[in-house]
Amino acid sequence: MTITGEMLRTHPKADGSDALLMCIEACVECAQSCTSCADACLGEEMVAELTGCIRKNLDCAAVCAATAVVLTRQTGSNPDTVRAVLEACRAACAACAEECEQHAGMHEHCTICAEACRRCERACAELLAA
Amino acid sequence: MTITGEMLRTHPKADGSDALLMCIEACVECAQSCTSCADACLGEEMVAELTGCIRKNLDCAAVCAATAVVLTRQTGSNPDTVRAVLEACRAACAACAEECEQHAGMHEHCTICAEACRRCERACAELLAA
Amino acid sequence: MTITGEMLRTHPKADGSDALLMCIEACVECAQSCTSCADACLGEEMVAELTGCIRKNLDCAAVCAATAVVLTRQTGSNPDTVRAVLEACRAACAACAEECEQHAGMHEHCTICAEACRRCERACAELLAA
Amino acid sequence: MTITGEMLRTHPKADGSDALLMCIEACVECAQSCTSCADACLGEEMVAELTGCIRKNLDCAAVCAATAVVLTRQTGSNPDTVRAVLEACRAACAACAEECEQHAGMHEHCTICAEACRRCERACAELLAA
Repeated sequence: MTITGEMLRTHPKADGSDALLMCIEACVECAQSCTSCADACLGEEMVAELTGCIRKNLDCAAVCAATAVVLTRQTGSNPDTVRAVLEACRAACAACAEECEQHAGMHEHCTICAEACRRCERACAELLAA
Repeated sequence: MTITGEMLRTHPKADGSDALLMCIEACVECAQSCTSCADACLGEEMVAELTGCIRKNLDCAAVCAATAVVLTRQTGSNPDTVRAVLEACRAACAACAEECEQHAGMHEHCTICAEACRRCERACAELLAA
Repeated sequence: MTITGEMLRTHPKADGSDALLMCIEACVECAQSCTSCADACLGEEMVAELTGCIRKNLDCAAVCAATAVVLTRQTGSNPDTVRAVLEACRAACAACAEECEQHAGMHEHCTICAEACRRCERACAELLAA
Repeated sequence: MTITGEMLRTHPKADGSDALLMCIEACVECAQSCTSCADACLGEEMVAELTGCIRKNLDCAAVCAATAVVLTRQTGSNPDTVRAVLEACRAACAACAEECEQHAGMHEHCTICAEACRRCERACAELLAA
């Protein structure tokens, strides 16, 4: 079991649903992937053509990190906030995935990052539907 | 002029609208206020009755901080992401303001924090309407 | 391989050392563990006795998250900054581990969180020594 | 009085020293300035020559933001952590200021950001000496 799962399991009041756990883990993973992809893009010689990707990476990283902490505190949070944050995360992931997919042929880091974004986008949609 | 205003003014491509500037500043202020209110609540003897407030403070701080960075990069961002992030920030601010207002009679830090949340909620609404 | 490993492997200039990879992953894990432990402590009936733990959890989460992003961008960063950030992370992890260890007998989330903090403290020390 | 000052004044246990208040405000300002400077650099035609500046901006923004929240919770924090975090913030600000100063002749946003970094570097040094 991951640390996120262990911590939810031992939380005095967490519901510990699978959809919640998977969404937190997808957000943490996507934030890390996007932070790394932004830096990889900065390291490419054609960086001037990747500024849109870097911005979407950094936006997605910030939104995923905030979503992860809000979900981790989900027990005590307002459901309206959780829902709106999940919608924002889904939008940021979709925008970043779409951008990274355009560079996937040239940059393997964009391929991997796009996959992480799509996983997180789906995990947000599934938690919204749960 | 604030540092946020100076930086937007000298950005090579920023639109520099007043609504954008005011919203970034309201988010930065509200994030700081909520971080501080969470700690002030932790320092109160009746902390056991303030756990809901602490959680909403921490959620609001995380969402406002993410919103501030996304808006600061607004030039290159996807409008769908910006709109969804503003909606999330408005929801987090409204939830935190409502909670802090309930303790405003007893704790001056909650009074001040509720005002910062309401200002940020309004600034998000105005930027969404702009 | 984890997403962090995949992204470092495909970065155009990353050194990809094992010590770097392990430290980034330990920071990400510890940030998540501490965010969750703070909320679990807020959910305990004896929260009034856990405020010191909540504060150290939140501090450690903030420092670990910042350390993870600085390390992820390690390729282009100033070595003095990286070193000082690793020292700060080691201190925050040690302080949080020590605190969590005091509650480990009563709260399983503190036991698990203390272990994550000790792993991260060691990973920082190993990267500093590398 | 700023929101940070108002919140410290109404905190049940804060010491409310001027050096602490000034350092928190300098960190918040510097984080905002560095986030904005990174994006302004991304918007410059000569972005390929500014990647080092963007990385130092993003590192400095992350470290200043973490420092601001740790200092805001200073009442309950471990003094060793606070000291190490202040040293890390001072190092990140010095590195970013040095880099921005090299581009100050060409980019006004780097001039303004370098000044914010130097103010924050000094504020950290003064709080360390207090």
